[in-house]
Amino acid sequence: MPALHADDLTALARGAAVLGTGGGGDPHIGKLMAQQALAEYGTVQMVAPQDLPDDACVLPVAMMGAPTVMVEKLPSADQIVVAVQSLARYLGVRPTHVASIEAGGINSIIPIVAAAQLGLPLVDGDGMGRAFPELQMVLPTLFGVDATPMAIVDEKGNRGVLDTIDNAWAERLARTATVEMGCSTIVCLYAMTGAQVRESFVPGTLSRAMAIGRAIEDARRELRDPVKTVVEILGGRQIVSGKVIDVSRRTTTGFARGEATLDGLDEHTGRRLVLRFQNEHLIAELDGEPVVTTPDLIVVLDRETGEPITTEALRYGHRVSVLGAPCDDRWHEPAGIDLVGPRYFGYDIDPVRVWTGRTEAA
Amino acid sequence: MPALHADDLTALARGAAVLGTGGGGDPHIGKLMAQQALAEYGTVQMVAPQDLPDDACVLPVAMMGAPTVMVEKLPSADQIVVAVQSLARYLGVRPTHVASIEAGGINSIIPIVAAAQLGLPLVDGDGMGRAFPELQMVLPTLFGVDATPMAIVDEKGNRGVLDTIDNAWAERLARTATVEMGCSTIVCLYAMTGAQVRESFVPGTLSRAMAIGRAIEDARRELRDPVKTVVEILGGRQIVSGKVIDVSRRTTTGFARGEATLDGLDEHTGRRLVLRFQNEHLIAELDGEPVVTTPDLIVVLDRETGEPITTEALRYGHRVSVLGAPCDDRWHEPAGIDLVGPRYFGYDIDPVRVWTGRTEAA
Repeated sequence: MPALHADDLTALARGAAVLGTGGGGDPHIGKLMAQQALAEYGTVQMVAPQDLPDDACVLPVAMMGAPTVMVEKLPSADQIVVAVQSLARYLGVRPTHVASIEAGGINSIIPIVAAAQLGLPLVDGDGMGRAFPELQMVLPTLFGVDATPMAIVDEKGNRGVLDTIDNAWAERLARTATVEMGCSTIVCLYAMTGAQVRESFVPGTLSRAMAIGRAIEDARRELRDPVKTVVEILGGRQIVSGKVIDVSRRTTTGFARGEATLDGLDEHTGRRLVLRFQNEHLIAELDGEPVVTTPDLIVVLDRETGEPITTEALRYGHRVSVLGAPCDDRWHEPAGIDLVGPRYFGYDIDPVRVWTGRTEAA
Repeated sequence: MPALHADDLTALARGAAVLGTGGGGDPHIGKLMAQQALAEYGTVQMVAPQDLPDDACVLPVAMMGAPTVMVEKLPSADQIVVAVQSLARYLGVRPTHVASIEAGGINSIIPIVAAAQLGLPLVDGDGMGRAFPELQMVLPTLFGVDATPMAIVDEKGNRGVLDTIDNAWAERLARTATVEMGCSTIVCLYAMTGAQVRESFVPGTLSRAMAIGRAIEDARRELRDPVKTVVEILGGRQIVSGKVIDVSRRTTTGFARGEATLDGLDEHTGRRLVLRFQNEHLIAELDGEPVVTTPDLIVVLDRETGEPITTEALRYGHRVSVLGAPCDDRWHEPAGIDLVGPRYFGYDIDPVRVWTGRTEAA
C-alpha cells in the first residue's frame, strides 16, 4: 500500500489541476490544507480499486460550488470530517475508505484531508477521470450507484442529509442548498462498496495526477518543453498555442460560466480559438469549428512553464497552450454522452473527439 | 383523554381557518385528508399539554410552502408519515405524541393524519396560537427550542434532514428546498420533550378551533350573526365590514404576498381598509392608519355566513367583515416583537394592538 506524503502534494495538486480541465478551484489552496492535515495526522495510505475488499465501505467526499467562490472561502478540516461523519451516521456504517469522486483541482485534495484526519486509507481513483460541473456526472451514475443519501455541510456549521429519487434531483437540491449556504459546501455522497468502486471508478487517477505534476517539474528542471510532456502523458494533442484576448465570466446558479477567446501565436498565427466553460472547459472552437468537446479533456497550460490555468485564473494577455486529451472510454457510450455531452450543456452539436474529430460510439 | 372523530373535522377545519388569519391554505382540503385517515385508522386521542409526561417525545408536523400552491398539490398521507419517521430515525427516538406547530388552516389538520396513521395521541395545542409565515416564528423559538434536526419531504419521494446553527437558518434552507421541491413540502421539526411543550406551547388551540367552528355553525342554524359570535369567542372587535374592491397577489420566494383593499358598507360607508399579507394577514390600515398589526390576529370572514376567507380566496366583490383579536401575550414581549413584529416583515411601524391601539410591552 503506497503512502502519500506531504512532499507528494505539490505534484499531485499540479497534476490534479491538469485533469481538472479548468475547473476544481485553485489547487494550491487545497494543497495547503492537505499539507497541514498530513503534518498533523501523518501519512495517508493509498489503495488501488482492484485491492479493495468487496464489502469495503467507501465514502467519497468533495467540495461543491463555484470555483470563483471556493478560492475565497476555505473549508475547514473539521467541515470535511463532519461531512463524512454525518453520512456515516445517517447510513449507520463505519467507513473503511475515503475516496475522491472527481479528479480535478481541489477535489483530488479534499479527500486527503478527510483520510488523514479520520485515519482511513484513500482509494487511488475517482468517479470521472477528470472534472465535471454537476454531481450526477460521474461514471457510478452510469452503473446505477445512487448519489444519495448524501451529507452537505457549510463552513458556518449548518448541515443536512439529502435522500433523493435520482441523481439529477440530488444535483438540483444540493445545488440550491449550496447556493443558499454561500456558494460552496462540502458534500459526502455516492457511498459505495468495494465491488461498486472497482466496477465504476477510473483507477489510478491520483497516481496519474502525481505523475503529471512530477513530469512538469522534471521538464522545467531539465529545460524541456513542459507542455509537450503533458501532451505525451495524456495521450492528447496540442490544439493551439496563443494569447488570451478576451474573457467573460459570470457566477450564476452556483456555477462559474463564461467564454475565453485566444489568438494563435507563432505557427498558429491567424487562428482563433474560443473556449466555452461552465466551471470546466466544455467546448473548444478553432476558427468557428468545434475541434474538441466534452467529454474529452480540454486543458489550458501556461505556454512556458506548463502550469495548469483554471477558468477563473484566465486573464487577458495570458500566453497559453490549449490541449485536447481523450477521456475514459465509458463516457463515449450513449448513456455517457446523454449525461455529459455538449447537448446536455445547451450546445446543439455532436461531441467531437480529440483524435478523430467525430463521435465514434454514437 | 378526549377523542377526535371524523364528525369533529368540519368544525375544526373551519375554526382553524379563523385562527389561520388568512394563511394556512384551504382547510377543506386538509379536512378531506383527515377524514380519510380517521375512517381508515380510527379516532385520534387528544392530550392537553399539562397532561404530557416530562419525557414525552413530541414531534410536530406541518406543511411548508405557499398556500396558493398547496391548494393545487395535495400531500399524500404517506408523505406526512415519512416526514415523522425520517426525523424519528435521524434522532434515534420513538415518538410518543404528534403535535401541530401552527394553529391555522391545513396545519391544524396535517398532524391529525400523522396521529391517525401512526396510532399516536395528538397534543391539544400549538406553537403559535395562530399562523405565521416563517418556521422560526413559534413560541418555542423564544424558549430556546431548536427547529432542527428537521425532516423535509416532497410528494415525489425526495427527502432530507436539516441540522442548522439556528432557527433562522432552518427557515432559510428549508424555504429554499421547498421552493425547489415545487413550493410545498411536509416538514417535521421542533422535536420536544413533554416539559418543553408545556412551557412553550399555546394550550388548547385544537379545542378552541373546534369551539369556533361549532359556534359559527350554531349561529347560522339559529339565525344569529356568526361574525358577532366569532368576535366574542376571540375576545376581539370588528374593524370594518365592507366590500373587496381590489386584490393584488404574487407568489415570490415561496410565499403568497399581496394587498387587498376594502370599501366600508352600511355604518362603515366612506371608510377604506387595506390588508397587507404574506401568507397571513399582517397589517390592517383603516383610512391610511394601521389599526391592528401582527402579532395580533387579523381575521377576514364572509359578512353573511361567517365563513373564514383565506388570502388566496379573497376576490373582488366579496362582502366581508374584518376582525382583530389578541394573540398569546408572550408574542408582545420584546423578543416576540423582534421575531414577528411589523418591522421584521419590512413595515416601518410599531406593532398596534387590537384593543389599545398601541404596543404595551415595548
